[in-house]
Amino acid sequence: MKKFVNAIDQLIPQSLAGFVSAHGSLVSLGGDGKFIQRKNLSKGKVALISGGGSGHEPLHAGFVGLGMLDAACPGQVFTSPTPDQMAEAAAAVDTGAGVLFIVKNYEGDVMNFDMAAEICGSTIEKVITDDDVAVERSTWSTGRRGVAGTMVVEKIVGAAAEAGASLQACAELGRRVNAATRSIGVALTSCTVPAAGKPTFDIDENELEFGVGIHGEPGRRRVSMKSASEIAEEMADSIRIDFDTAQGRALLLVNGFGGTPMIELYLMYGELRSYLEKAGFEISRSLVGNYVTSLEMAGCSATLTLLDDQLSGYWDAPVNTPSLRWGM
Amino acid sequence: MKKFVNAIDQLIPQSLAGFVSAHGSLVSLGGDGKFIQRKNLSKGKVALISGGGSGHEPLHAGFVGLGMLDAACPGQVFTSPTPDQMAEAAAAVDTGAGVLFIVKNYEGDVMNFDMAAEICGSTIEKVITDDDVAVERSTWSTGRRGVAGTMVVEKIVGAAAEAGASLQACAELGRRVNAATRSIGVALTSCTVPAAGKPTFDIDENELEFGVGIHGEPGRRRVSMKSASEIAEEMADSIRIDFDTAQGRALLLVNGFGGTPMIELYLMYGELRSYLEKAGFEISRSLVGNYVTSLEMAGCSATLTLLDDQLSGYWDAPVNTPSLRWGM
Repeated sequence: MKKFVNAIDQLIPQSLAGFVSAHGSLVSLGGDGKFIQRKNLSKGKVALISGGGSGHEPLHAGFVGLGMLDAACPGQVFTSPTPDQMAEAAAAVDTGAGVLFIVKNYEGDVMNFDMAAEICGSTIEKVITDDDVAVERSTWSTGRRGVAGTMVVEKIVGAAAEAGASLQACAELGRRVNAATRSIGVALTSCTVPAAGKPTFDIDENELEFGVGIHGEPGRRRVSMKSASEIAEEMADSIRIDFDTAQGRALLLVNGFGGTPMIELYLMYGELRSYLEKAGFEISRSLVGNYVTSLEMAGCSATLTLLDDQLSGYWDAPVNTPSLRWGM
Repeated sequence: MKKFVNAIDQLIPQSLAGFVSAHGSLVSLGGDGKFIQRKNLSKGKVALISGGGSGHEPLHAGFVGLGMLDAACPGQVFTSPTPDQMAEAAAAVDTGAGVLFIVKNYEGDVMNFDMAAEICGSTIEKVITDDDVAVERSTWSTGRRGVAGTMVVEKIVGAAAEAGASLQACAELGRRVNAATRSIGVALTSCTVPAAGKPTFDIDENELEFGVGIHGEPGRRRVSMKSASEIAEEMADSIRIDFDTAQGRALLLVNGFGGTPMIELYLMYGELRSYLEKAGFEISRSLVGNYVTSLEMAGCSATLTLLDDQLSGYWDAPVNTPSLRWGM
């Protein structure tokens, strides 16, 4: 294993120090390094907090800022943050309108965010994301896993909070976006958790993990490597079958897991879009890039969110974070 | 080799088709796929065109749009585009104020952009970037290589062109930015050119290529793997020594080559910034991410550009491209 590290146990704090130093106008480090917080809080706005294991960057810290999150709580690589992180973050960013926790559906994350809600003094609502259609339960989750669709929830609810929506309205909107979102991922290689020092799983030179999780958890099945078009067709089918209807406007997010070049992600975007359009979806919004990663894993996921005028408007609304910036 | 491809010879055209379909409001495909062009040209503005081998995305196509490039000409992976691509792009985007070619210093690129200048009907100036301090000549270059500093030239000159600078002024500014810019890169792994099907170079599990080029060309030397801090110190030293002065405001770009996770890039940013500040530079602008890549190579580069008020202002100016967006 070769990585840019000094000591493994210093990787996350040193990385966070670099992060806030690079983006000092947008974010700062709070609670002795326990969380990243937005620099200019909007008084009376519902505060949005997310978090989870590190290794998925830019999720979540890269999405702290105007129009998205107010704080992000990073755990060690692929390890839940602790309840005191979320509780301290809530105390730091709650300006009186309450706090919404956006939590990916992994047992550790859900449990620790729940404990944080109990010990912190804020009024808390939570949205649990579970957009991954691959499997109904997995290594660290009961029920579906929360994956790249989480950033769509963060963006849309972030815009609503910025526009003055109440805590209850933000929570309901988040659940509605999650319910309108489906994702599926495939991996060509594993990734290596620094503290483990060896690849999370073995995969042959001619194999593909269909339905992989964002920590390298097993998906639906291991299959022989296929053409991009064949892979995209099966991904699009998995999403289409899971929706009741295959009609209407939608956002298509093609997300890289970290180790796949952009030329391949754009090729996959073209293939996925083509299959989804044939299935009846109208792709009216798009995003392509490495947004919810699995360290240096080669692979990608497709996320489809059904849109109406309200959701499109919130998606288009200004955002100013380290890793997502538009409209201002 | 596992990649998301259908047929190798269709990788670039299919990827470009996906790219313009994902970013249809900003860019379109011109000349039967020979180039990517900005959708809304500004009449009377100097046209900026760059290009080069594919595999470095988002450079250059990801930087086509308001405040940066008017067209980008992609070759095959790590292979120069042909003169007719640049000539046709010039004809398409020249609105009367002339065309500036921004060319990375590789023999094929320089020759083909020169031939394009001869055969096209536009008034042409050119800026050659050669910011890589690693070596004085390399596999495909006489003189220093043009690497990540190229995007700094594109951003700053793009803002000047948008503000109405003349062709001559844009060319002089581009040369001035290039002269104020130094880069150095390190690789932990190779990358695999799809048409070759095997890694470009071999590197052991405990080795690092110091001064690597963005096509995997050899750098200064092969060294044993070291801590992030030690690597950053040698990178910062290489840049500092190459400047006449180690004082003044500067932009620090920490660029990933594709296969290095963001947590490591931010850790390296913190280390590099610390060494460069100790050396006397004041880091007043920062950018961290995968901007000038080498397919899925693990590694990163540091680029330092000395700034004055004019260059800082152009850096901060609005930009609206698929891969760089701020201020609007």
